[in-house]
Formats: sequence, structure tokens, C-alpha cells
Amino acid sequence: MKTVLLTGFEPFNKEPINPAWETVRALDGWQGGAGDEAFRVVARQLPCVFGAANAAMSALLDEVRPVLVIAVGQAGGRVDLTVERVAINVDDAPIKDNAEQQLVDAPIVPGGPAAYFSTLPIKAVVAALRAAGLPASVSQTAGTFVCNHVFYGLMHALADRAGVRGGFIHIPYLPEQAARHPGMASMSLAQMIEGLRIAVQTSLAVSRDTSVAAGATH
Amino acid sequence: MKTVLLTGFEPFNKEPINPAWETVRALDGWQGGAGDEAFRVVARQLPCVFGAANAAMSALLDEVRPVLVIAVGQAGGRVDLTVERVAINVDDAPIKDNAEQQLVDAPIVPGGPAAYFSTLPIKAVVAALRAAGLPASVSQTAGTFVCNHVFYGLMHALADRAGVRGGFIHIPYLPEQAARHPGMASMSLAQMIEGLRIAVQTSLAVSRDTSVAAGATH
Amino acid sequence: MKTVLLTGFEPFNKEPINPAWETVRALDGWQGGAGDEAFRVVARQLPCVFGAANAAMSALLDEVRPVLVIAVGQAGGRVDLTVERVAINVDDAPIKDNAEQQLVDAPIVPGGPAAYFSTLPIKAVVAALRAAGLPASVSQTAGTFVCNHVFYGLMHALADRAGVRGGFIHIPYLPEQAARHPGMASMSLAQMIEGLRIAVQTSLAVSRDTSVAAGATH
Amino acid sequence: MKTVLLTGFEPFNKEPINPAWETVRALDGWQGGAGDEAFRVVARQLPCVFGAANAAMSALLDEVRPVLVIAVGQAGGRVDLTVERVAINVDDAPIKDNAEQQLVDAPIVPGGPAAYFSTLPIKAVVAALRAAGLPASVSQTAGTFVCNHVFYGLMHALADRAGVRGGFIHIPYLPEQAARHPGMASMSLAQMIEGLRIAVQTSLAVSRDTSVAAGATH
Repeated sequence: MKTVLLTGFEPFNKEPINPAWETVRALDGWQGGAGDEAFRVVARQLPCVFGAANAAMSALLDEVRPVLVIAVGQAGGRVDLTVERVAINVDDAPIKDNAEQQLVDAPIVPGGPAAYFSTLPIKAVVAALRAAGLPASVSQTAGTFVCNHVFYGLMHALADRAGVRGGFIHIPYLPEQAARHPGMASMSLAQMIEGLRIAVQTSLAVSRDTSVAAGATH
Repeated sequence: MKTVLLTGFEPFNKEPINPAWETVRALDGWQGGAGDEAFRVVARQLPCVFGAANAAMSALLDEVRPVLVIAVGQAGGRVDLTVERVAINVDDAPIKDNAEQQLVDAPIVPGGPAAYFSTLPIKAVVAALRAAGLPASVSQTAGTFVCNHVFYGLMHALADRAGVRGGFIHIPYLPEQAARHPGMASMSLAQMIEGLRIAVQTSLAVSRDTSVAAGATH
Repeated sequence: MKTVLLTGFEPFNKEPINPAWETVRALDGWQGGAGDEAFRVVARQLPCVFGAANAAMSALLDEVRPVLVIAVGQAGGRVDLTVERVAINVDDAPIKDNAEQQLVDAPIVPGGPAAYFSTLPIKAVVAALRAAGLPASVSQTAGTFVCNHVFYGLMHALADRAGVRGGFIHIPYLPEQAARHPGMASMSLAQMIEGLRIAVQTSLAVSRDTSVAAGATH
Repeated sequence: MKTVLLTGFEPFNKEPINPAWETVRALDGWQGGAGDEAFRVVARQLPCVFGAANAAMSALLDEVRPVLVIAVGQAGGRVDLTVERVAINVDDAPIKDNAEQQLVDAPIVPGGPAAYFSTLPIKAVVAALRAAGLPASVSQTAGTFVCNHVFYGLMHALADRAGVRGGFIHIPYLPEQAARHPGMASMSLAQMIEGLRIAVQTSLAVSRDTSVAAGATH
């Protein structure tokens, strides 16, 4: 049986909760598919700490031996499920991480490539989410904080592991978070969980991404 | 038993569905409270048509004899449940209504007051919604389309009916709508329904609104 | 010779400068028109203080005897010159005014009308601004802070003065302010001044506003 | 004397004008500095066409032999001068280019690195712009259209040219454009020109970028 690894962060930036962790924990142990396509989900929490988060991810890859990894992170203020296109090799933190570090313009992997593209079928995932009535879009930037850090670290680790797909999905605030941040959008936990299910299934099923425009003029 | 009237519009602006109608229809027949506080909800659909919508509202007030009326409308692009503060006496339509009318700078009630304030306890409703984990805020404008038209028409009609409270709540797109409008926020139907329940209960329970700032500098 | 009164506020909310005052002071003494249409501009500063601002406005109306009054205020975050449609009879301050007052849900004029509409030709002003290459739009809310307070107070005072037109225009941050508020839009002082010139000339020249849609669905 | 190359695009997306070209053409022939620091600016227009734009850029590098290249592009909707951090190796066009091409998920340089970072001192440039009262920020994405295409192509070409710095700056709509796009921010041409002057001078003067946070959580 194939294993799928989903990760979500611990709460950060003074939030009592992290929608990413709430979402992936709900899918821990989920089994789907049949026969050769059978899969099982392992969900784990990552610290919101530069360095430590990637060390934890590396250990998880060794332990879990997944065929697919989707890291999930909170993007407070975004309105929909955003499937990230690219991770860049820089930490430039607008706020402190949970270990009180605030890295500025530091490479994630010194000497590493400037960027890695997601190996998820990002267009197919967005199309499947929308077809299911879930707001979703491709994002051209995962930022420069711990989310991008883990996304880059994951893709760097997977560069050596043929056949393992990986990527990152940002999700909005939960309603109870947005209730404390007037003006911010939100999405229900049930929809986030449903969205992640679809992202997993689509990523396992679609070998070659669909070719539809999902870029930005700027 | 007290009667509460909730109204929602038919779909407009090429949408196949209107979250306002979906929300209030789910509450039709809902009964709550006990003893003197017992209430029953009647939910009705209004046409998204200048004039006809207010004629329908007037007929409903006579038929239903409510003690409380909350009109609900779709505000595509807003991120939360917005409790409207004020209705103004002007129709200025950026799009056509469902009867292909596009009124410009026409008074809703010729000779009527320039505006009416909501008689709902708007601050208490917002506080109760947030306390329940639902994103909500006070809005300083209901626009100048059919929503404001009905809000104004309702408050004008209630000016003659002592003791009947009324107001207007705008709600975001449903997720399935936002899935077709990338970049737009959404809220789940379940949360909108829960929000309306809270708005009804709070409006029945709170006689004098709480005094907390919820204004805008501009 | 006709007199036009322009007012701008002193700085507030910790800003060292107020674009509204910078703009109108640049037009103090400006003379235009010819023959019966000749006019002269008087520009005055108002305190950003509930009550005191309207007292100052009243005194100015007696002193200056204008045929036209345009009050101007800063709307940090707005992207263009916004010609306000309506003033509402409520103070609900999200921040303190310059006298440390934070009024909540207080009527501006107890017993006064719920609102007053601008008597400027707001559609014609917006059209003239755009024709001159200046970003502009009609706004459906002037907020509930001192700007709306002065707008309402002005229109209440003018209700007794036949033939005197009045209204309110909100303007964006100046570039040097936006340079300290990342993510906020701005407009150059030269363009704000040019915009106010056009607003004055159009308001003097156009007796009956043009009928073009400039409303909002919500 | 050192040569600085500035490029701006021809108009695209049905606009009659492109602020990038208007800005850089105004600086063509500008000379500054003294002695060893003397420089002269050459400004050239690029077609808004995938492929052709980069061919033109390559030819310009050979012809002009610059020590510094800043490509400038229109970012309609952005509020400030945005100094781009990174170019990614993908074309994914949301609209057609001026040759009616709409590339989807095509590499700009097949086999090329996934991304290149700007070699401008981007933090120092933003700081200098703000110090001059001009709204500016670091941007984490240049999009996936012709702007990013040229930015990537430029950095790929400069990878072989030791000592030549390059980068990309996005600029807002001009006011006359925003006047036709209600809701969009703008900046005056004079300020864009002043901003580019500062970007050139700072890029020539600052060898090592300042270390200040300018990242994004997402």
C-alpha cells in the first residue's frame, strides 16, 4: 500500500490554532483507492521553526517512505485553497518564527538551486477543487517564511528520491480565526479537509498535469 | 407566538443560485424560544427587481405580521457576514435588475427621508456572531442596488409599525460560487445559516444595542 | 464675485501631514471665471475634532458667505479621488479624534434627518476628473468619523441656506505618507490640487447633475 | 563612462500607453556621477512578445555593454514601485502577448535553472525610494507573463557576464490609465521617473545589499 505524507504546522504568529494542522490531522489514517492504487495517509505536525521544520521533514521522509507529500500551511488573508507553483531558496522572515528566529536573506540550502517547482499536478488539482465547488487557485509565491522554507526543503530532499511527488498548499484562516481578524476571509474546516482529500486523490491519479493557463501578468 | 420574517432574493447577475435565499429557506419554519419568547420563522423569497421587491415586502408584512424582519442579500466579494447600518433613499444600479431595469439616481420613496438606520441591535449581533466563531462586521453602506432598495423600503414601511424591528444583512458568496469567481471570498452555507440563527436570537433578546465602536474613518 | 469655501483637516491619526489641508491651502486665493461667473477661493483648516470641527464650519459659513463649499478629507487606503454621495447622522469613531474623544453611535444633530445627500453634481465631477486623466469615483459612504461628521454638519447648515451647494471629497494618502504605509495607494499633491480645481469648476458650471450609473451592488 | 541600460515595454493588453516605456524613455541620455562613477543611461523599448523580447534584450546587451540593467514593466493594480526579488523559469500567460501567443507552462530556457535572483541591491533600493517619499516595496513574484520572461532572460544572459548587475522593477498604472480602470491605484509619471533615477543611483552605489526584512509570510 502506498503511503501519502501530509504535514501541517503548529500554530504561529500568536494564533491559538493552525488550520493546516487541523486539516491534515483529520486525514491521518485515511485510506483510499483499491488494488495497486490503494493508499494510506500519514499526517504529522511540523514546528514553525526555520531549520527544525526541515529536519523534521527529512526524518519523516525516511520514516514514512511516502510516494506523495503535500505540505500544508496557513495563509491568513488568502481567500481560497492556493496550490503553490514554486519554492525559492531564501528565508526572509517578516515575523519571528516559534524559536524567536528572524532570518533575513539567508539561503535555505547554501549552494542549492534558486528554486524548485512543485511536482504536483497543480493545474489538475485546482481544476478538481473547483469542479467540487471549492474555491482554489494556483499561487505564484509561497512567501519567504517557514512555509516556503519547508516547501523548498521538501523539494530539495525529493530531488534525490525518484518518483516521489511533492508540493505545498496554502489554506485560509478558519472562521473562528477570521472572527478575530475583521476583514480577513476564511474557509470552513470541512471544506479544507475535503479540498485536501481531492488534492491527494488528484495527485495520485494524474501523472501528467493538464495544460491550462493559471499564471499572472505580474 | 411571535413571528420572524426572513427574506432572501432570487438569483441575480447571472448567478444560478443566491446564498441569501438558500440561507433563509433553510430556516423557514424554525421555532425557538419558550413561553412569551417563543418565535417561529417565516422565510420568503423576493424578486431581484426594483419596485416589485418592495411591493412583495409590503404584502409580506401585512400577511405575516412579524415582530422582527431581517432581509438578507448576496454581497459577492465581501469576506464576512455584514450587518448593515443604514439604508439610503436612492436607486443607482451598476447592473440591470431581473426585469432589465437599470435605475439611476431615482428616489426609492419620493419625498421620503434621505435614510433610515437599522433598528436591529447591530453591534450586539456582530459581537454574538464573532463570539460564535463566525466572521462578521458592521457595514456602513448597503450599496445602491436592489438590496439597499429593499432595506430602505422595509424601514420605511416599519416606520408606521411601532415595535417591529428590521434590518439587513449581507452575506458572501457560497464556496461553489467563489469557485467560479477566482479571488473572491466565500462562506459555507452551514455557517451562514448558523449566523442567521444567531442574528435572529440576538435581535429578539437584546432590546438596547451595546455601545462599542464599529465605525470607519472613511 | 462669488466665493468658494474649501476646507481641509489638520493632521490626525499620528500623521505629520494631511493631504486635504495641503491640497486646499494651495488653492487659497485662487480666482477663476469671468464676469458673472467670477469666483474666488477661500481655503481654511478645520480641527479633526468632533463638535469643534462643525462649530468652525458654521462660523466659516457666516464669515465667508460662499456659494459653494467642498470639504476635503484624507482617506488613507483609497486609490482615487472619491466624491461622497451621502452623509449620515451618526458618529461612530474607530479611533480617537485630536481631542482624545471617541464617540460611539452618537447622533451628530440630535433629532436631525438620518442623512443628507451631497448637493454637488457628483456624477459630473467624477466624469470631469476622469476626462482630465485623474482617477475618481463616487463613494457610497464617507465613514462615521470626523469627515462624515463635518459633511453632515455642513449639509445640515446648508439646508437653511438656499442656493448654496455643498459636498465632500475624500482623497488618498500623499506618496510620502504611503512610503511609510506599505501596501497603501497614493496620489501626488499636484494631481489632488488639479482634481480640486476641476471639482470646483464643475460644481459651479453644472446646475443639473448628469444621469450616469455610479452605484454599487453592495 | 559606464552605461546603464533601462528597458520598458510597448503597450499591451489594449492599453494605449505603457508607463514603463514612458518612464524609461524620459531617462534616455541621462548622465550622472563623476570621475570613475560617471554613467550614461540608454533606454530602449522591448516588444511585449514572448521570445522576441528576450532576443531584443540579448542584442541590446551586446550593443550597449551596460554595467547595470533594469527592466521595467507595468503592473496594473499594484500601488507602488515594486522591486522584484526573483524570476522563475516558466511562461504561463493569463492573456495573449502582442503576437497573439499565449504560452502555458513553457520553460523560458529549456534546461535552465528554475529561477534567478535579482542582483540589484533590492532592499537598499526600496529603502532609498521610501526615504525619498516614494511608495515602494520588495515583490516576491514578477508573475509568469512577459515581464517575468524578460527578467528571467536577462538574468540568464547576465550569468555569463561577470560584474553586470540586473533586475526588474514593476510600476503601477499612470493616473490616466487608472482613470479608465476604477478601483485601480496609480502613480504620477514624475514620481516613476524620480523612482527610477533613485534605483539606478542606488544600484550603482551600493555594492552589498542591506540586510533588512522585506519578506512575506505567504
